[in-house]
Amino acid sequence: MKKITCSEWDSLSKIHRLNLINSCTGYKSANLIGTKSPNGIPNVAVFSSVTHLGSSPALLGFILRPNVVPRNTYNNIKATGYFTVNHIAEHMIAQAHQTSASYDAEISEFDMVNLKQEYLSDIDVPFVKDSPVKLLCRYINEYEIAENNTIHIIAAIEEIHFRDEILHNDYWLQLDQADVVAVNGLDGYCLPKIVDRFDYARPHTQTKSILKNGA
Amino acid sequence: MKKITCSEWDSLSKIHRLNLINSCTGYKSANLIGTKSPNGIPNVAVFSSVTHLGSSPALLGFILRPNVVPRNTYNNIKATGYFTVNHIAEHMIAQAHQTSASYDAEISEFDMVNLKQEYLSDIDVPFVKDSPVKLLCRYINEYEIAENNTIHIIAAIEEIHFRDEILHNDYWLQLDQADVVAVNGLDGYCLPKIVDRFDYARPHTQTKSILKNGA
Repeated sequence: MKKITCSEWDSLSKIHRLNLINSCTGYKSANLIGTKSPNGIPNVAVFSSVTHLGSSPALLGFILRPNVVPRNTYNNIKATGYFTVNHIAEHMIAQAHQTSASYDAEISEFDMVNLKQEYLSDIDVPFVKDSPVKLLCRYINEYEIAENNTIHIIAAIEEIHFRDEILHNDYWLQLDQADVVAVNGLDGYCLPKIVDRFDYARPHTQTKSILKNGA
Repeated sequence: MKKITCSEWDSLSKIHRLNLINSCTGYKSANLIGTKSPNGIPNVAVFSSVTHLGSSPALLGFILRPNVVPRNTYNNIKATGYFTVNHIAEHMIAQAHQTSASYDAEISEFDMVNLKQEYLSDIDVPFVKDSPVKLLCRYINEYEIAENNTIHIIAAIEEIHFRDEILHNDYWLQLDQADVVAVNGLDGYCLPKIVDRFDYARPHTQTKSILKNGA
Protein backbone atom coordinates (compact mmCIF):
# COMPACT_ATOMS: atom_id res chain seq x y z
CA MET A 1 0.00 0.00 0.00
CA LYS A 2 1.10 3.54 -0.78
CA LYS A 3 0.34 6.47 1.55
CA ILE A 4 -0.02 10.14 0.65
CA THR A 5 -0.68 12.73 3.34
CA CYS A 6 -2.28 16.15 3.20
CA SER A 7 1.03 18.01 3.31
CA GLU A 8 2.32 15.86 0.42
CA TRP A 9 -0.61 16.51 -1.91
CA ASP A 10 -0.50 20.22 -1.06
CA SER A 11 2.84 20.32 -2.86
CA LEU A 12 1.50 18.61 -6.01
CA SER A 13 0.53 20.57 -9.12
CA LYS A 14 -3.10 21.69 -9.19
CA ILE A 15 -4.18 19.11 -11.77
CA HIS A 16 -2.43 16.24 -9.96
CA ARG A 17 -4.11 17.20 -6.70
CA LEU A 18 -7.48 17.46 -8.46
CA ASN A 19 -7.03 13.98 -9.94
CA LEU A 20 -6.02 12.41 -6.62
CA ILE A 21 -8.66 14.01 -4.40
CA ASN A 22 -11.47 13.61 -6.95
CA SER A 23 -10.80 9.89 -7.33
CA CYS A 24 -10.19 8.96 -3.68
CA THR A 25 -13.80 9.02 -2.42
CA GLY A 26 -15.17 6.33 -4.76
CA TYR A 27 -17.44 6.25 -7.78
CA LYS A 28 -19.77 9.17 -8.45
CA SER A 29 -23.08 9.48 -10.26
CA ALA A 30 -22.95 10.73 -13.86
CA ASN A 31 -25.76 13.12 -14.69
CA LEU A 32 -26.63 15.90 -17.08
CA ILE A 33 -28.57 18.72 -15.44
CA GLY A 34 -30.95 20.47 -17.81
CA THR A 35 -32.30 23.99 -17.21
CA LYS A 36 -33.84 26.84 -19.17
CA SER A 37 -33.02 30.53 -18.75
CA PRO A 38 -35.83 33.06 -18.18
CA ASN A 39 -35.34 34.24 -21.78
CA GLY A 40 -35.72 30.72 -23.13
CA ILE A 41 -32.17 29.46 -23.70
CA PRO A 42 -31.82 25.76 -22.77
CA ASN A 43 -28.72 24.74 -20.83
CA VAL A 44 -27.23 21.32 -20.08
CA ALA A 45 -24.17 20.55 -17.95
CA VAL A 46 -22.49 17.43 -16.55
CA PHE A 47 -22.50 16.90 -12.76
CA SER A 48 -21.03 14.09 -10.67
CA SER A 49 -22.29 15.13 -7.24
CA VAL A 50 -26.02 14.31 -7.47
CA THR A 51 -26.78 12.25 -4.34
CA HIS A 52 -29.85 10.60 -2.87
CA LEU A 53 -30.93 12.43 0.30
CA GLY A 54 -34.11 10.66 1.31
CA SER A 55 -37.12 8.77 0.02
CA SER A 56 -40.00 10.27 1.97
CA PRO A 57 -40.12 13.01 0.84
CA ALA A 58 -38.11 12.14 -2.29
CA LEU A 59 -35.11 14.46 -2.14
CA LEU A 60 -31.74 14.74 -3.85
CA GLY A 61 -28.82 17.09 -3.42
CA PHE A 62 -25.91 18.25 -5.53
CA ILE A 63 -22.92 20.56 -5.09
CA LEU A 64 -22.32 23.77 -7.04
CA ARG A 65 -18.96 25.53 -7.17
CA PRO A 66 -19.87 29.16 -7.88
CA ASN A 67 -16.26 30.29 -7.93
CA VAL A 68 -15.15 27.77 -10.52
CA VAL A 69 -17.86 27.19 -13.11
CA PRO A 70 -20.12 29.69 -14.83
CA ARG A 71 -23.36 29.87 -12.94
CA ASN A 72 -25.78 29.28 -15.81
CA THR A 73 -27.23 26.18 -14.15
CA TYR A 74 -27.61 27.90 -10.78
CA ASN A 75 -29.04 31.12 -12.21
CA ASN A 76 -31.59 29.22 -14.27
CA ILE A 77 -32.67 27.04 -11.34
CA LYS A 78 -33.10 30.08 -9.10
CA ALA A 79 -35.05 31.94 -11.78
CA THR A 80 -37.39 29.12 -12.84
CA GLY A 81 -37.43 26.81 -9.80
CA TYR A 82 -36.99 23.66 -11.89
CA PHE A 83 -34.31 21.45 -13.43
CA THR A 84 -33.95 17.95 -14.83
CA VAL A 85 -31.45 15.21 -13.90
CA ASN A 86 -30.61 12.92 -16.82
CA HIS A 87 -28.48 9.78 -16.47
CA ILE A 88 -25.55 9.46 -18.85
CA ALA A 89 -25.50 6.23 -20.87
CA GLU A 90 -22.30 4.75 -22.30
CA HIS A 91 -22.92 6.00 -25.85
CA MET A 92 -23.26 9.62 -24.59
CA ILE A 93 -20.06 10.04 -22.57
CA ALA A 94 -18.06 12.21 -25.01
CA GLN A 95 -21.00 14.58 -25.55
CA ALA A 96 -21.73 14.68 -21.81
CA HIS A 97 -18.11 15.53 -20.96
CA GLN A 98 -18.04 18.29 -23.59
CA THR A 99 -20.91 20.11 -21.77
CA SER A 100 -18.34 21.01 -19.08
CA ALA A 101 -16.68 23.48 -21.50
CA SER A 102 -17.32 27.16 -20.70
CA TYR A 103 -19.86 28.17 -23.30
CA ASP A 104 -21.40 31.64 -23.11
CA ALA A 105 -24.77 31.92 -21.40
CA GLU A 106 -26.47 32.81 -24.71
CA ILE A 107 -25.32 29.53 -26.29
CA SER A 108 -27.23 26.29 -25.74
CA GLU A 109 -24.93 23.37 -24.93
CA PHE A 110 -27.57 21.09 -26.47
CA ASP A 111 -26.66 22.52 -29.90
CA MET A 112 -22.91 22.68 -29.21
CA VAL A 113 -22.54 19.03 -28.19
CA ASN A 114 -25.33 17.67 -30.37
CA LEU A 115 -27.61 16.37 -27.61
CA LYS A 116 -31.34 16.47 -28.35
CA GLN A 117 -33.70 18.06 -25.84
CA GLU A 118 -37.28 16.99 -25.21
CA TYR A 119 -40.15 18.25 -23.05
CA LEU A 120 -41.88 15.53 -21.04
CA SER A 121 -43.74 17.43 -18.32
CA ASP A 122 -45.97 20.47 -17.93
CA ILE A 123 -42.96 22.50 -16.81
CA ASP A 124 -40.93 24.29 -19.50
CA VAL A 125 -37.59 22.63 -18.71
CA PRO A 126 -35.55 20.46 -21.08
CA PHE A 127 -34.82 16.74 -20.62
CA VAL A 128 -32.04 14.97 -22.53
CA LYS A 129 -33.75 12.83 -25.16
CA ASP A 130 -31.25 9.95 -25.26
CA SER A 131 -30.96 9.61 -21.48
CA PRO A 132 -32.41 6.30 -20.14
CA VAL A 133 -33.44 7.69 -16.71
CA LYS A 134 -34.57 11.30 -16.19
CA LEU A 135 -35.96 13.19 -13.22
CA LEU A 136 -38.01 16.36 -12.98
CA CYS A 137 -36.77 18.25 -9.91
CA ARG A 138 -38.03 21.30 -8.04
CA TYR A 139 -35.59 23.55 -6.15
CA ILE A 140 -36.37 23.64 -2.42
CA ASN A 141 -33.43 25.08 -0.53
CA GLU A 142 -29.68 25.54 -0.49
CA TYR A 143 -27.02 25.34 2.20
CA GLU A 144 -23.78 27.22 1.81
CA ILE A 145 -20.87 25.02 2.81
CA ALA A 146 -18.70 27.67 4.43
CA GLU A 147 -15.59 25.46 4.49
CA ASN A 148 -15.04 25.80 0.72
CA ASN A 149 -17.71 28.27 -0.48
CA THR A 150 -19.76 25.66 -2.30
CA ILE A 151 -23.54 25.41 -2.34
CA HIS A 152 -25.49 22.25 -1.51
CA ILE A 153 -28.71 22.40 -3.52
CA ILE A 154 -31.70 20.48 -2.10
CA ALA A 155 -34.47 19.51 -4.51
CA ALA A 156 -37.67 17.50 -4.57
CA ILE A 157 -38.03 14.78 -7.19
CA GLU A 158 -41.43 15.19 -8.85
CA GLU A 159 -41.36 12.79 -11.80
CA ILE A 160 -39.20 9.82 -12.84
CA HIS A 161 -39.02 8.79 -16.52
CA PHE A 162 -37.18 5.59 -17.38
CA ARG A 163 -36.91 2.81 -19.91
CA ASP A 164 -39.55 0.18 -19.14
CA GLU A 165 -37.15 -2.77 -19.14
CA ILE A 166 -35.03 -1.57 -16.18
CA LEU A 167 -37.95 -1.68 -13.66
CA HIS A 168 -38.08 -4.73 -11.36
CA ASN A 169 -41.21 -5.99 -9.61
CA ASP A 170 -39.99 -4.43 -6.35
CA TYR A 171 -39.48 -1.03 -8.08
CA TRP A 172 -35.69 -1.27 -8.12
CA LEU A 173 -34.32 0.34 -11.30
CA GLN A 174 -31.47 -1.84 -12.62
CA LEU A 175 -29.21 0.83 -14.08
CA ASP A 176 -26.80 -1.50 -15.89
CA GLN A 177 -29.62 -2.70 -18.14
CA ALA A 178 -29.62 0.81 -19.64
CA ASP A 179 -25.79 1.12 -19.73
CA VAL A 180 -25.79 4.01 -17.23
CA VAL A 181 -22.22 5.07 -16.40
CA ALA A 182 -20.46 6.23 -13.21
CA VAL A 183 -17.57 8.68 -12.85
CA ASN A 184 -14.08 7.92 -11.45
CA GLY A 185 -12.37 11.20 -10.59
CA LEU A 186 -12.73 14.28 -12.79
CA ASP A 187 -12.89 12.67 -16.19
CA GLY A 188 -13.05 8.86 -16.07
CA TYR A 189 -16.32 7.32 -17.29
CA CYS A 190 -16.97 3.74 -16.16
CA LEU A 191 -19.61 1.14 -17.01
CA PRO A 192 -20.85 -0.83 -13.96
CA LYS A 193 -22.41 -4.29 -14.08
CA ILE A 194 -24.45 -5.78 -11.26
CA VAL A 195 -22.68 -8.33 -9.05
CA ASP A 196 -25.37 -9.06 -6.44
CA ARG A 197 -28.25 -7.65 -4.39
CA PHE A 198 -28.76 -8.50 -0.74
CA ASP A 199 -31.76 -8.74 1.54
CA TYR A 200 -32.24 -6.25 4.40
CA ALA A 201 -29.45 -7.07 6.88
CA ARG A 202 -30.36 -8.38 10.34
CA PRO A 203 -27.98 -9.06 13.25
CA HIS A 204 -26.72 -12.64 13.58
CA THR A 205 -28.42 -13.67 10.32
CA GLN A 206 -26.59 -14.83 7.19
CA THR A 207 -26.47 -12.20 4.40
CA LYS A 208 -28.91 -13.38 1.70
CA SER A 209 -28.80 -12.64 -2.04
CA ILE A 210 -32.09 -11.47 -3.50
CA LEU A 211 -30.93 -11.11 -7.10
CA LYS A 212 -31.47 -14.79 -7.73
CA ASN A 213 -35.06 -14.62 -6.47
CA GLY A 214 -36.08 -12.57 -9.51
CA ALA A 215 -37.26 -9.52 -7.53
CA MET B 1 -40.37 5.15 -21.57
CA LYS B 2 -42.38 4.73 -18.38
CA LYS B 3 -43.31 7.67 -16.15
CA ILE B 4 -44.00 7.64 -12.39
CA THR B 5 -45.01 10.81 -10.59
CA CYS B 6 -44.68 11.85 -6.96
CA SER B 7 -48.34 11.15 -6.17
CA GLU B 8 -48.00 7.66 -7.68
CA TRP B 9 -44.96 6.63 -5.62
CA ASP B 10 -46.55 8.04 -2.48
CA SER B 11 -49.13 5.25 -2.79
CA LEU B 12 -46.49 2.50 -3.12
CA SER B 13 -45.44 0.32 -0.19
CA LYS B 14 -42.55 1.71 1.84
CA ILE B 15 -39.99 -0.77 0.48
CA HIS B 16 -41.07 -0.23 -3.14
CA ARG B 17 -40.75 3.54 -2.73
CA LEU B 18 -37.33 3.10 -1.09
CA ASN B 19 -36.16 0.95 -4.02
CA LEU B 20 -37.42 3.39 -6.65
CA ILE B 21 -36.16 6.63 -5.10
CA ASN B 22 -32.83 5.16 -4.00
CA SER B 23 -32.05 3.90 -7.51
CA CYS B 24 -33.25 6.89 -9.55
CA THR B 25 -30.36 9.30 -8.89
CA GLY B 26 -27.59 7.11 -10.36
CA TYR B 27 -24.70 5.10 -8.98
CA LYS B 28 -23.42 5.80 -5.48
CA SER B 29 -20.05 5.33 -3.81
CA ALA B 30 -19.64 2.18 -1.68
CA ASN B 31 -17.71 2.81 1.50
CA LEU B 32 -17.24 1.40 4.96
CA ILE B 33 -16.89 4.09 7.62
CA GLY B 34 -14.71 3.03 10.55
CA THR B 35 -14.86 4.68 13.97
CA LYS B 36 -13.94 3.92 17.58
CA SER B 37 -16.06 4.69 20.63
CA PRO B 38 -14.52 6.62 23.55
CA ASN B 39 -14.42 3.35 25.50
CA GLY B 40 -12.51 1.59 22.75
CA ILE B 41 -15.12 -0.37 20.79
CA PRO B 42 -14.42 -0.29 17.02
CA ASN B 43 -17.39 0.26 14.71
CA VAL B 44 -17.76 -0.18 10.96
CA ALA B 45 -20.82 0.60 8.84
CA VAL B 46 -21.63 0.75 5.13
CA PHE B 47 -22.45 4.16 3.58
CA SER B 48 -23.37 5.07 0.00
CA SER B 49 -23.51 8.86 0.35
CA VAL B 50 -19.82 9.77 0.65
CA THR B 51 -19.26 12.54 -1.93
CA HIS B 52 -16.31 14.62 -3.03
CA LEU B 53 -16.80 18.26 -1.95
CA GLY B 54 -13.61 19.96 -3.01
CA SER B 55 -9.90 19.44 -3.60
CA SER B 56 -8.33 22.49 -1.97
CA PRO B 57 -8.87 21.99 0.89
CA ALA B 58 -9.54 18.25 0.42
CA LEU B 59 -13.08 17.80 1.71
CA LEU B 60 -15.76 15.13 1.55
CA GLY B 61 -19.31 14.95 2.82
CA PHE B 62 -21.78 12.22 3.72
CA ILE B 63 -25.37 12.03 4.93
CA LEU B 64 -26.50 10.62 8.27
CA ARG B 65 -30.09 9.67 9.02
CA PRO B 66 -30.33 9.96 12.80
CA ASN B 67 -33.96 8.89 12.90
CA VAL B 68 -33.41 5.68 10.98
CA VAL B 69 -30.11 4.10 11.92
CA PRO B 70 -28.45 3.75 15.31
CA ARG B 71 -26.08 6.64 15.79
CA ASN B 72 -22.93 4.71 16.72
CA THR B 73 -21.00 6.17 13.79
CA TYR B 74 -22.14 9.71 14.53
CA ASN B 75 -21.57 9.47 18.28
CA ASN B 76 -18.06 8.10 17.79
CA ILE B 77 -17.14 10.77 15.24
CA LYS B 78 -18.38 13.53 17.54
CA ALA B 79 -16.54 12.07 20.51
CA THR B 80 -13.19 11.38 18.84
CA GLY B 81 -13.16 13.78 15.86
CA TYR B 82 -11.93 11.12 13.43
CA PHE B 83 -13.18 8.38 11.12
CA THR B 84 -11.94 6.34 8.18
CA VAL B 85 -13.52 5.84 4.73
CA ASN B 86 -12.70 2.45 3.21
CA HIS B 87 -13.64 1.48 -0.36
CA ILE B 88 -15.53 -1.77 -0.76
CA ALA B 89 -13.95 -4.24 -3.19
CA GLU B 90 -15.94 -6.92 -5.00
CA HIS B 91 -14.88 -9.76 -2.68
CA MET B 92 -16.14 -7.82 0.39
CA ILE B 93 -19.71 -6.97 -0.65
CA ALA B 94 -21.60 -9.52 1.49
CA GLN B 95 -19.63 -8.57 4.62
CA ALA B 96 -19.98 -4.86 3.86
CA HIS B 97 -23.75 -5.15 3.43
CA GLN B 98 -24.07 -7.09 6.69
CA THR B 99 -22.60 -4.11 8.62
CA SER B 100 -25.93 -2.34 8.02
CA ALA B 101 -27.64 -4.68 10.53
CA SER B 102 -28.53 -3.05 13.87
CA TYR B 103 -25.90 -4.40 16.21
CA ASP B 104 -25.76 -3.06 19.76
CA ALA B 105 -23.26 -0.28 20.44
CA GLU B 106 -21.16 -2.62 22.64
CA ILE B 107 -20.64 -5.05 19.76
CA SER B 108 -17.95 -4.49 17.12
CA GLU B 109 -19.26 -5.07 13.59
CA PHE B 110 -15.70 -5.99 12.62
CA ASP B 111 -16.10 -9.20 14.64
CA MET B 112 -19.70 -9.81 13.63
CA VAL B 113 -19.07 -9.68 9.86
CA ASN B 114 -15.50 -10.98 9.98
CA LEU B 115 -13.73 -7.90 8.61
CA LYS B 116 -10.20 -7.29 9.90
CA GLN B 117 -9.28 -3.89 11.31
CA GLU B 118 -5.86 -2.27 11.09
CA TYR B 119 -4.26 0.92 12.42
CA LEU B 120 -2.31 2.87 9.82
CA SER B 121 -2.01 6.35 11.30
CA ASP B 122 -1.15 8.03 14.58
CA ILE B 123 -4.85 8.40 15.33
CA ASP B 124 -6.58 5.55 17.19
CA VAL B 125 -9.23 4.85 14.55
CA PRO B 126 -9.69 1.56 12.67
CA PHE B 127 -9.20 1.08 8.93
CA VAL B 128 -10.60 -1.96 7.09
CA LYS B 129 -7.62 -4.18 6.29
CA ASP B 130 -8.87 -5.65 3.01
CA SER B 131 -10.02 -2.33 1.55
CA PRO B 132 -7.93 -1.22 -1.48
CA VAL B 133 -8.40 2.57 -0.89
CA LYS B 134 -8.74 4.09 2.59
CA LEU B 135 -8.93 7.65 3.88
CA LEU B 136 -8.23 9.14 7.27
CA CYS B 137 -10.80 11.90 7.83
CA ARG B 138 -11.22 14.60 10.46
CA TYR B 139 -14.67 15.91 11.35
CA ILE B 140 -15.01 19.64 10.59
CA ASN B 141 -18.64 20.64 10.63
CA GLU B 142 -22.20 19.48 10.05
CA TYR B 143 -25.25 21.01 8.40
CA GLU B 144 -28.71 19.89 9.38
CA ILE B 145 -30.85 19.43 6.29
CA ALA B 146 -34.14 20.65 7.71
CA GLU B 147 -36.21 19.24 4.82
CA ASN B 148 -35.81 15.65 6.05
CA ASN B 149 -33.93 15.89 9.35
CA THR B 150 -30.71 14.45 8.01
CA ILE B 151 -27.21 15.65 8.79
CA HIS B 152 -24.58 16.51 6.18
CA ILE B 153 -21.19 15.79 7.74
CA ILE B 154 -18.22 17.78 6.36
CA ALA B 155 -14.76 16.31 6.87
CA ALA B 156 -11.16 16.99 5.89
CA ILE B 157 -9.21 14.19 4.20
CA GLU B 158 -5.84 13.90 5.96
CA GLU B 159 -4.31 10.70 4.55
CA ILE B 160 -4.97 8.48 1.53
CA HIS B 161 -3.80 4.85 1.56
CA PHE B 162 -4.14 2.84 -1.65
CA ARG B 163 -2.75 -0.09 -3.58
CA ASP B 164 0.32 1.05 -5.51
CA GLU B 165 -0.85 -0.31 -8.87
CA ILE B 166 -3.94 1.92 -9.15
CA LEU B 167 -1.95 5.21 -9.19
CA HIS B 168 -1.39 6.82 -12.61
CA ASN B 169 1.39 9.28 -13.41
CA ASP B 170 -1.11 12.15 -13.23
CA TYR B 171 -2.27 11.01 -9.74
CA TRP B 172 -5.59 9.63 -10.96
CA LEU B 173 -6.53 6.53 -8.96
CA GLN B 174 -8.01 3.94 -11.36
CA LEU B 175 -10.57 2.31 -9.08
CA ASP B 176 -11.46 -0.60 -11.36
CA GLN B 177 -7.92 -1.94 -11.08
CA ALA B 178 -8.71 -2.70 -7.43
CA ASP B 179 -12.25 -4.02 -8.14
CA VAL B 180 -13.90 -1.19 -6.18
CA VAL B 181 -17.71 -1.44 -6.38
CA ALA B 182 -20.53 1.09 -6.69
CA VAL B 183 -24.07 0.90 -5.29
CA ASN B 184 -27.32 0.85 -7.31
CA GLY B 185 -30.22 1.67 -4.97
CA LEU B 186 -30.35 0.32 -1.43
CA ASP B 187 -28.76 -3.05 -1.92
CA GLY B 188 -27.35 -3.57 -5.44
CA TYR B 189 -23.55 -3.86 -5.63
CA CYS B 190 -22.04 -3.25 -9.08
CA LEU B 191 -18.55 -3.60 -10.54
CA PRO B 192 -17.58 -0.73 -12.87
CA LYS B 193 -14.96 -0.94 -15.62
CA ILE B 194 -13.36 2.10 -17.24
CA VAL B 195 -14.67 3.06 -20.69
CA ASP B 196 -12.69 6.25 -21.37
CA ARG B 197 -11.13 9.37 -19.88
CA PHE B 198 -11.35 12.77 -21.55
CA ASP B 199 -9.17 15.87 -21.65
CA TYR B 200 -10.36 19.12 -20.02
CA ALA B 201 -13.28 20.30 -22.20
CA ARG B 202 -12.93 23.56 -24.14
CA PRO B 203 -15.62 25.30 -26.22
CA HIS B 204 -15.63 24.53 -29.95
CA THR B 205 -12.88 21.91 -29.54
CA GLN B 206 -13.30 18.19 -30.22
CA THR B 207 -13.55 16.05 -27.04
CA LYS B 208 -10.23 14.19 -26.71
CA SER B 209 -9.57 10.85 -25.01
CA ILE B 210 -6.59 10.83 -22.63
CA LEU B 211 -6.82 7.19 -21.62
CA LYS B 212 -4.90 6.11 -24.70
CA ASN B 213 -2.06 8.55 -23.95
CA GLY B 214 -1.01 6.49 -20.93
CA ALA B 215 -1.54 9.25 -18.36
